[in-house]
Amino acid sequence: MSKPLMYFLVPMGDPAGVGPEIVLKVLAQLDFPENVALIFVADRPLLELTASRLGLSFAFDSIITSDLALEVAMQRQDRTILYSLPLVDLSSFSFGTISADCGRAAYRSVEKCVSLIMSGLGQAIVTPPLHKEALKLAKVPYIGYTEILSALSGSAQAVTMFDTLGMKIFFHSRHLSLIEACKAVTYETILKTILQCNEISTSSLAFNNNLPLAIAGLNPHCGEHGLFGNEEQEAIAPAVEKAREMGVAIEGPIGADSVFYQTRMGRYRAVISLYHDQGHIAAKTLDFNQTVSITWSLPFLRTSVDHGTAFDIAGKGIADPQGMARAIAVASEYAYSRDTYK
Amino acid sequence: MSKPLMYFLVPMGDPAGVGPEIVLKVLAQLDFPENVALIFVADRPLLELTASRLGLSFAFDSIITSDLALEVAMQRQDRTILYSLPLVDLSSFSFGTISADCGRAAYRSVEKCVSLIMSGLGQAIVTPPLHKEALKLAKVPYIGYTEILSALSGSAQAVTMFDTLGMKIFFHSRHLSLIEACKAVTYETILKTILQCNEISTSSLAFNNNLPLAIAGLNPHCGEHGLFGNEEQEAIAPAVEKAREMGVAIEGPIGADSVFYQTRMGRYRAVISLYHDQGHIAAKTLDFNQTVSITWSLPFLRTSVDHGTAFDIAGKGIADPQGMARAIAVASEYAYSRDTYK
Repeated sequence: MSKPLMYFLVPMGDPAGVGPEIVLKVLAQLDFPENVALIFVADRPLLELTASRLGLSFAFDSIITSDLALEVAMQRQDRTILYSLPLVDLSSFSFGTISADCGRAAYRSVEKCVSLIMSGLGQAIVTPPLHKEALKLAKVPYIGYTEILSALSGSAQAVTMFDTLGMKIFFHSRHLSLIEACKAVTYETILKTILQCNEISTSSLAFNNNLPLAIAGLNPHCGEHGLFGNEEQEAIAPAVEKAREMGVAIEGPIGADSVFYQTRMGRYRAVISLYHDQGHIAAKTLDFNQTVSITWSLPFLRTSVDHGTAFDIAGKGIADPQGMARAIAVASEYAYSRDTYK
Repeated sequence: MSKPLMYFLVPMGDPAGVGPEIVLKVLAQLDFPENVALIFVADRPLLELTASRLGLSFAFDSIITSDLALEVAMQRQDRTILYSLPLVDLSSFSFGTISADCGRAAYRSVEKCVSLIMSGLGQAIVTPPLHKEALKLAKVPYIGYTEILSALSGSAQAVTMFDTLGMKIFFHSRHLSLIEACKAVTYETILKTILQCNEISTSSLAFNNNLPLAIAGLNPHCGEHGLFGNEEQEAIAPAVEKAREMGVAIEGPIGADSVFYQTRMGRYRAVISLYHDQGHIAAKTLDFNQTVSITWSLPFLRTSVDHGTAFDIAGKGIADPQGMARAIAVASEYAYSRDTYK
């Protein structure tokens, strides 16, 4: 028996970046699992412009403009649906340019996706890149997707995780300057992160729960017992000890230059990275295009490409859709493991 | 015509760690290039204990105890030479234990290697791991090999570089806490590092000088124009601009989550990492055992394994000699490119 069709919602991303191009490429090539169907929430004239400029096909099973029509298309089991919204003013649009209009369009597109999935239309949101500065110009009061999705779905604290070739990396902090990220390593916050990552990873079949969690150190060689840095002794190790007392299987802090390799080699269920680049460097040096971001603790599953809008190559037809295709494939893997996930 | 024999000096490292074991394994298996010969400066009774306990062979072409005897062995073209010094008190020795005695022994061993190479005996020093806390207990006034080698050879500022499968990574800072490493990113220090790395890399045939250097950013996505962190705008970018005016081919700052991948893909001659873990994570997540450290700006070539003393497995016979063998192989590659290096 074939698996039932799952519908994933795909917002437009920043229209001036590579987002629309990579989604159009994935759709045109049907480069996603057989049991997945995609609902692309985007601006039709902008997509037509992108397709014609880049010589891409513009073929959807259905193009609709209302929730009711979407439900009909889903009942019909259409696999590629464009939910068109008037988002972009083409008279002032240009590829590769940061603008308030494009930031606003990216926001309104994902806002619609959240509204649909919260109404039960769709099983996951898979996001192409948006541009943080464009969001800021548009006066959107959130720094990126994760914050937008948390706010719109009323979630207290979303948690980001990377999956790179099966290596799973959680993040204690993300969009902070490095010096602020150092200051964000405290006993209380680390313990909270450990408990949250433990709850997520023990509640999903996507993790190997025979293995312990791991947490990275902050300083070189975990500070070598205080020779350079005390956060390991003062915050991380005590939080790990407390978590163990509470029944969490976790090891660390482990030097950042070995813990990711060990996780990659299958020794840990997942590793907690203490700051953005710590986990990003591990994942993306290993495989830049196969790194997918997964957001936990939302009422729905969300995966994302982890590359940016690439304004330098936007509108040129040379963007690589591999990351987008991988984000959709990973969403389908995690969606199946989701039944047991609260 | 076969290449002439090159002599590499190998200090003992911390005797309580895996250093003696991995060197004995490399020597026993002759797991190094044909044109390389090794002079192991170590304590004979300690090595005999290590070999007998781990079931390793203890076979050297010659075992000598004076510089004169070393010269004779080198003239004879012996390929495996033990230069034995009384370094370890076996009555109080135990594997896997941090001690002042072992720290002192590790120091005296490398001190002898420097003295030999400065007298023209040997073309490179290849180091197995020592333990920084043992050095500190022994009241050695240097934090690690690099500082010891700089001081003993009267070098102003040694520069560390990694080579992982050909990906070359320089370090702006190393053994600083992460918060101190952030503070060490200033216009003056970054410019100095760029100029130094440029001089090194343009003076050696080991680098592809058709390619520019790259420098990583400090903050996530280089701070996204100041959204989280200003070091890119205030220090790194101006230093890069100044270096370009001075004729240096360099690009950056480039986000740390992409610059290592791009360097790996062959886009840059080498990349400058701004702090210890930034470059370490990139190198060692990619290939933990094939990462070799090279120290530039000394009067001699020095390479090193980049793993630690691994006290948890010391004396058990299960240490992997691959990193040590790779450090010797890389030394032989760089030694050939050294003619044009000042």
